[in-house]
Amino acid sequence: MADQAVISSLVIPSATKIVLLVLDGLGGVSLEPGGMTELETARTPNLDALARDGVCGLHDPVGRGITPGSGPSHLALFGYDPLEHQIGRGVMEALGIGFDLQAGDVAARGNFCTVDDKGLITDRRAGRIPTEKGAELVDLLRSIELPNVQTFVEPVKEYRFVVVIRGEDLTGPLTETDPQRLGAAPLPVKALRPEAEGTAFLFNQWIAAARDILADQRPANMVALRGLDKNPGLPSMQEVYGLHSAAVAVYPMYRGAARLVGMKVLPTGENIQEEIEALRANWEEYDFFFVHVKKIDSAGEDGDFERKVSLIEEADKVVIPAILQLLPDVLVVTGDHSTPALLRSHSWHPVPVLLYSRHCRSDPTASFSERECARGALGRFPATDIMPLAMANALRLTKFGA
Amino acid sequence: MADQAVISSLVIPSATKIVLLVLDGLGGVSLEPGGMTELETARTPNLDALARDGVCGLHDPVGRGITPGSGPSHLALFGYDPLEHQIGRGVMEALGIGFDLQAGDVAARGNFCTVDDKGLITDRRAGRIPTEKGAELVDLLRSIELPNVQTFVEPVKEYRFVVVIRGEDLTGPLTETDPQRLGAAPLPVKALRPEAEGTAFLFNQWIAAARDILADQRPANMVALRGLDKNPGLPSMQEVYGLHSAAVAVYPMYRGAARLVGMKVLPTGENIQEEIEALRANWEEYDFFFVHVKKIDSAGEDGDFERKVSLIEEADKVVIPAILQLLPDVLVVTGDHSTPALLRSHSWHPVPVLLYSRHCRSDPTASFSERECARGALGRFPATDIMPLAMANALRLTKFGA
Repeated sequence: MADQAVISSLVIPSATKIVLLVLDGLGGVSLEPGGMTELETARTPNLDALARDGVCGLHDPVGRGITPGSGPSHLALFGYDPLEHQIGRGVMEALGIGFDLQAGDVAARGNFCTVDDKGLITDRRAGRIPTEKGAELVDLLRSIELPNVQTFVEPVKEYRFVVVIRGEDLTGPLTETDPQRLGAAPLPVKALRPEAEGTAFLFNQWIAAARDILADQRPANMVALRGLDKNPGLPSMQEVYGLHSAAVAVYPMYRGAARLVGMKVLPTGENIQEEIEALRANWEEYDFFFVHVKKIDSAGEDGDFERKVSLIEEADKVVIPAILQLLPDVLVVTGDHSTPALLRSHSWHPVPVLLYSRHCRSDPTASFSERECARGALGRFPATDIMPLAMANALRLTKFGA
Repeated sequence: MADQAVISSLVIPSATKIVLLVLDGLGGVSLEPGGMTELETARTPNLDALARDGVCGLHDPVGRGITPGSGPSHLALFGYDPLEHQIGRGVMEALGIGFDLQAGDVAARGNFCTVDDKGLITDRRAGRIPTEKGAELVDLLRSIELPNVQTFVEPVKEYRFVVVIRGEDLTGPLTETDPQRLGAAPLPVKALRPEAEGTAFLFNQWIAAARDILADQRPANMVALRGLDKNPGLPSMQEVYGLHSAAVAVYPMYRGAARLVGMKVLPTGENIQEEIEALRANWEEYDFFFVHVKKIDSAGEDGDFERKVSLIEEADKVVIPAILQLLPDVLVVTGDHSTPALLRSHSWHPVPVLLYSRHCRSDPTASFSERECARGALGRFPATDIMPLAMANALRLTKFGA
């Protein structure tokens, strides 16, 4: 497989437009052995027509047998090797709430929690304090100052916040302080590599200061930090592919993933129609659009096979025609991973993918389904090859060698 | 592809059971161009039903075009990169006879041979002396002592034995002493890397002592050594996958391969029924079972297409129902390599594989054959991905990243 540096070296300018439509958790499994998956059950005439004229396959987000989290799976879809670029949850959360995280910043997810007189946790979520209360407490924590670095604290929702330390030579990864059970004291931050000792020390100082500030608060009198890691500062989609790129996504995680690779995250409402409006309104401004549809995954996570089927049908009916109306040069439709209702969770199963463009070579795939994609001409391949394929079909890559 | 360290980092406990059924030499080739292979010719209703409800593909044990030996192909099936971990035949032989080989031991296969007055070989197998005679001579060789190391000599069969040197800082690989032709003298052992010089010296000392001890014996008055190499001490299946694993195999080579990765090798008789009994008797004790069926390969090696067909049919009729009766959570059926009767030997052709579990996604494969597997959803993939797939289907791997 050609790596990103090879692809980058082939990039040429073009006025073509690419849409990557991610139906989150698209892949499924039948409820009975040998039966039909959610996608196979759904009536999807628009996707089927694209599959007939386009080219299909199955992608592995990270590798055979590996169930990906949403961070790694989206990085892979954007063409960044998810094994090489492992991104901490704190980084994803900070990016997701729209914080302007910079390369080298170290970010953590924080919880307000309740501890007793002995410092032992009695409630890991501090009674799920309301969002306004969380924001008030975050304001108090903003007063903490550490030597030679900047600190940022941002509210997320209810008892959740993000803390970021910015400075020279910070590094991760670091251990978490949430002991994940009641009756235990929050743990100290420890460096998982020797060079992260200094950063661990700073976080421990910050936590000690936070404890003092919160001492008289009830029930949120302490904090626990998780997913502490550094923003590695990935090269942007502009740098790698020469693409002026934008994301249409509702949920923080996916907005964060897009920001991580330098996409402009477009303002949008919460439903599919509003996402389509955001796409339409910005169509002229960008070369590449990542459009994320979340709810199919949620139905899978809920174990609701029927709802997943009907949400796939809705995407087929509403989203596909709206995108095609804009006449993209390349349309890729896929998922970031499978979320079979049978398993009520992300899974390791490969993900159906279809690519449609004026320049694709159509294959025997007669409809868009897991079984049909298994015989598609794209074969079974790593998700990181999707971007090179999209770029090639958009005539944005020149010849390799003479 | 995710390497073993990534897979290991995702392992979670579970009570599920995995069976890896290896039909040795399963893959074949048609006798006439365009005709049917041995597996395609065989009537295999049980395997066909599993293929219909399960998921299929073709694996390459080592790489496209590479004909594997049984050692590398089994390591690959167990998820160990056979290019990274090259195991000498001496090591395999020592493990195969049940010798308690330790990490760092250097082992060689030995032959008693006959040399004339000038020390030239006149019979490479010393007239195939009986096993009892071989054992007697091995007893004599046990008297050899070398400085600062321990030596072990174990009889194998007829004129064959194993010699092991155990000590600090031994290393291989080393050249063989068998010149592989008559009329030549046994060669000295040479180091194939500079750091193996000391070990080569020890083996040459041992050979000189053996020659003196055997000087008055007829016809076995000399030894020749082959496959000299160190036991690299692979991480066990328990360490890598958290699997308490057991092997049911009749032949020494396969028992040795299993021991190399820390499996418990179960006592069993010599036929398929006895192997099934061993599996049944130990079902409650282990998480993972490697079940090896040898004779299909032997028929291929003999060039006996019809016998290979009927042995595949026997496995379908006898072994599959017996395994299914135990209700494994995951059943993988494959070969370690292809052994087409047409070629009378191992070959490079990819090997049919089927995976069946409650959580697999069934694909369009309608029967278990090379042609059908070529359109299976597993695609064509390296054998080392089989264990990650089996682990995933057994719900023994957690999510990668957030």
